[in-house]
Amino acid sequence: MIMEGKWHLSLFFFLLFVLAKEVVVAAPPNIIVMLMDDMGWGDLGIYGNPAKETPNLDQMAAEGILLPDFYSGNPLCSPSRAALLTGRLPIRNGFYTTNEHARNAYTPQIIVGGIQDNEILLPELLQKAGYRNKLVGKWHLGHQPQFHPLKHGFDEWFGAPNCHFGPYNDKNTPNIPVYQDAEMAGRYYEEFAIDKKTGESNLTQLYIQEALNFIDKNVASKLPFFLYWAPDGAHEPHYASSEFLGTSQRGLYGDTVRELDYGVGAILGSLKAHGIDNNTFVLFSSDNGAPLNDHNGGSNGPFLCGKETTYEGGMREPTIAWWPNHIKPGRVTHQIGSVMDIFTTALSVADIDPPTDRIIDGQNLLPALLSDTMDANKTMYYYRGNEMMAVRHGLYKAHYWTWTNSIEEFMSGVNFCRGENVTGVMTHEQVNHTLSPLLFHLGRDPGEKYPIKSTAAEYKAEMPQIMEIVADHKANLIPGTPQLNMCDNAVMNWSPPGCEKLNKCLKGPASEPQKCSWPH
Amino acid sequence: MIMEGKWHLSLFFFLLFVLAKEVVVAAPPNIIVMLMDDMGWGDLGIYGNPAKETPNLDQMAAEGILLPDFYSGNPLCSPSRAALLTGRLPIRNGFYTTNEHARNAYTPQIIVGGIQDNEILLPELLQKAGYRNKLVGKWHLGHQPQFHPLKHGFDEWFGAPNCHFGPYNDKNTPNIPVYQDAEMAGRYYEEFAIDKKTGESNLTQLYIQEALNFIDKNVASKLPFFLYWAPDGAHEPHYASSEFLGTSQRGLYGDTVRELDYGVGAILGSLKAHGIDNNTFVLFSSDNGAPLNDHNGGSNGPFLCGKETTYEGGMREPTIAWWPNHIKPGRVTHQIGSVMDIFTTALSVADIDPPTDRIIDGQNLLPALLSDTMDANKTMYYYRGNEMMAVRHGLYKAHYWTWTNSIEEFMSGVNFCRGENVTGVMTHEQVNHTLSPLLFHLGRDPGEKYPIKSTAAEYKAEMPQIMEIVADHKANLIPGTPQLNMCDNAVMNWSPPGCEKLNKCLKGPASEPQKCSWPH
Repeated sequence: MIMEGKWHLSLFFFLLFVLAKEVVVAAPPNIIVMLMDDMGWGDLGIYGNPAKETPNLDQMAAEGILLPDFYSGNPLCSPSRAALLTGRLPIRNGFYTTNEHARNAYTPQIIVGGIQDNEILLPELLQKAGYRNKLVGKWHLGHQPQFHPLKHGFDEWFGAPNCHFGPYNDKNTPNIPVYQDAEMAGRYYEEFAIDKKTGESNLTQLYIQEALNFIDKNVASKLPFFLYWAPDGAHEPHYASSEFLGTSQRGLYGDTVRELDYGVGAILGSLKAHGIDNNTFVLFSSDNGAPLNDHNGGSNGPFLCGKETTYEGGMREPTIAWWPNHIKPGRVTHQIGSVMDIFTTALSVADIDPPTDRIIDGQNLLPALLSDTMDANKTMYYYRGNEMMAVRHGLYKAHYWTWTNSIEEFMSGVNFCRGENVTGVMTHEQVNHTLSPLLFHLGRDPGEKYPIKSTAAEYKAEMPQIMEIVADHKANLIPGTPQLNMCDNAVMNWSPPGCEKLNKCLKGPASEPQKCSWPH
Repeated sequence: MIMEGKWHLSLFFFLLFVLAKEVVVAAPPNIIVMLMDDMGWGDLGIYGNPAKETPNLDQMAAEGILLPDFYSGNPLCSPSRAALLTGRLPIRNGFYTTNEHARNAYTPQIIVGGIQDNEILLPELLQKAGYRNKLVGKWHLGHQPQFHPLKHGFDEWFGAPNCHFGPYNDKNTPNIPVYQDAEMAGRYYEEFAIDKKTGESNLTQLYIQEALNFIDKNVASKLPFFLYWAPDGAHEPHYASSEFLGTSQRGLYGDTVRELDYGVGAILGSLKAHGIDNNTFVLFSSDNGAPLNDHNGGSNGPFLCGKETTYEGGMREPTIAWWPNHIKPGRVTHQIGSVMDIFTTALSVADIDPPTDRIIDGQNLLPALLSDTMDANKTMYYYRGNEMMAVRHGLYKAHYWTWTNSIEEFMSGVNFCRGENVTGVMTHEQVNHTLSPLLFHLGRDPGEKYPIKSTAAEYKAEMPQIMEIVADHKANLIPGTPQLNMCDNAVMNWSPPGCEKLNKCLKGPASEPQKCSWPH
């Protein structure tokens, strides 16, 4: 009897093991990418914001791993987001302009272009592998219907294709539509209110709720999911819900950050409550540095300049990865990373091979996240439009071109580096340093204030290797067809899909395509 | 039998209770103040340094409480240290100059003055209450024998009276002596080597060992102790021991910071090992902001300018308090604090009343540290020499005077705000804004880049109250006799006490007192 009992027990455990293994095989890890808009490296408590108002993100870092050397794909939103979803530099995936040299470009609603069908997006690959994908928030990869998220791998979408600028009068410019999946659900400043006087809007709450509902649904259906949580909060015009308005010592910007931080806590809390935290890889970052032009309130910490520039403040992002029981809590990795690595890393998490028919710039960060493995050869390329402005290798950064903005723009009050002045480094002309790049050591000098003299032994020791890497990069570069060259008032969001049902179709002007004007 | 046993047990517990109570009464909490030299707010991982190389300090913060709104007593070393030990503004305790308006002054070895006998120092009060006091490291309150630590409340001293500048040739200038208690034990660059070529020195290790020995000794003798740990590391010339040299991504400065961080870990570890961590109040801070003049490597995070200035970068300090079982771990308080509060807070920890015969600027921080109590009326005064340059009340800071340094000095390359430029705020003339101070909101604008217009409603609502506070402050101000006016080559460290025993007495010149020259 006792023997028999033991045998039964063994069988039971064997079956349990088989079952458990099957469960593991059947449930690839969920993936959540939280991408903030215009949030700076220095906006998080854990990254040194003096207000210390991000308890949930600080806790996420304590449970996860910090990546202080993580970058956006571009100093501007659309190209950075296209880089994230394709794992490729904007110069390759087409999110740049050739209208003028080294100009930032994005996807306002007059843009004609968008993400091309021949680009392979992360959600497309995940979808094929059985993932259920949702974008909550800003798309910014083209607002014409053929470019929409549901045409490029997402199963669901709640959010807008463009920035929440406005309100517009619907005559010269329509308000930006908010989509529920393939059809519009209303427009900003109309069905989706933003009070520009008080700064009140419940949009972040909607984005949080959409995320939580999506998680609930997939837990119920036992499907692996990819959630791309990209609220437009932290991009101006700033807003917060009544519960958060006036709660920050940082003003409305801080209220916004606090509400986003609350959202992060709510989402991670939901994963824990569902017991899927150990099976969900989460990465938090931002699409570019905080803009310093107006008094927005964002902080790039100790880094130089901000959004629109290829100094560190323009592209260094406040990044945290989180995956309980896989990532050891409380660690820091100085592995150079970028939003393009999210593509490759997410594929690795899902055990999917990346495409081999094209150059993928993203690399798999899992070795750095799961152990102390560091790829010292990782290189970061800082592009502005069609020009490689700078390159980072190890702790060295070489500026091949420098430019803040034109002196005319600067004199009229546009300043991407407010309060800062590093002579010869911040230039109001596009200065070509290609023959003798400006070299900085970002360990000793993260603020890029002390170029290493080109006569110094250190310069002579480091620069040749960087030159070689850059030569190799340029030799292998086949620029994609630029998508951000042409603008046309006719393509604006006059009559988005679904507008008939809501009686919200507007009539736009006749098509008159012209070259977009990109001032900086 | 059982009843009797129970009674015996009750008696036993009662006696234990009496005994325990007696032990508590007999052992007031130990106090450790760790004061770094020239370390900036942004030098710690927990305060946002991108290198994240201070694991022990970050852990101290996780176990203790962060004070992101804590200030030095002055933007320069000696006055700040005098403020800490007296709990009084330098303008009151005499650590300032009237040679010229608003000039920074300190105690180089030609200074004649020093701490006066009529000032009451923290260690004097603690000594009277039975504490055993030791200074490990830099004194900087006057190097002539009458000013020495052992004349002002310390029982022991290992360290130097002045900065570790040098090496000198002993003809025009003697090397700075290092003291063991009342007598010199050698000199920097002689018995206490600093290799300026390699940056190697074991001084920080000596300072750590002295601290650990002092703790061991007092644990053995069961005496309460006050340790003032003030290594000169992080002040230039930078040095680190061979074990730390070359280990930081931040260069030699980072090596220094790493070694100091190691020291913090060693000291806190010793308290834990001895089981006295719950009975030891520890406060970590710095004496002024990181200097930005040369490429020292220190960081003031997002704050404007550095050492020598009364912008936030000159006086905001990386501060952590730690007292296990008393301070709840992982908290943050935005209570405005300053090194002067260390005086009053330490007295409160030791249950000693502060002096009532004079104005004490320091206030007790324990309510903010032990609970969430915030004193919203706390005011911070930013002095430079004999002038109140600025004042902070709540989140508002009003600059009554602005000055970086003279245009002549600036043109010759001296720059206290390298890489920064805020027009009208950073001025190369001493600009008097007293009638209409420059007002900033440090929550929305910690970098002091956006003065609030004097026509704004916010300005009109806030400024009158600040004006009233300042008027009150000035009405009650009786400046102390300035100690930093006179200099004399004859008072240098030619023949410090104990030099005979070491055969290290030097002959100085005849006395020729003259007004010190303070360029900024």
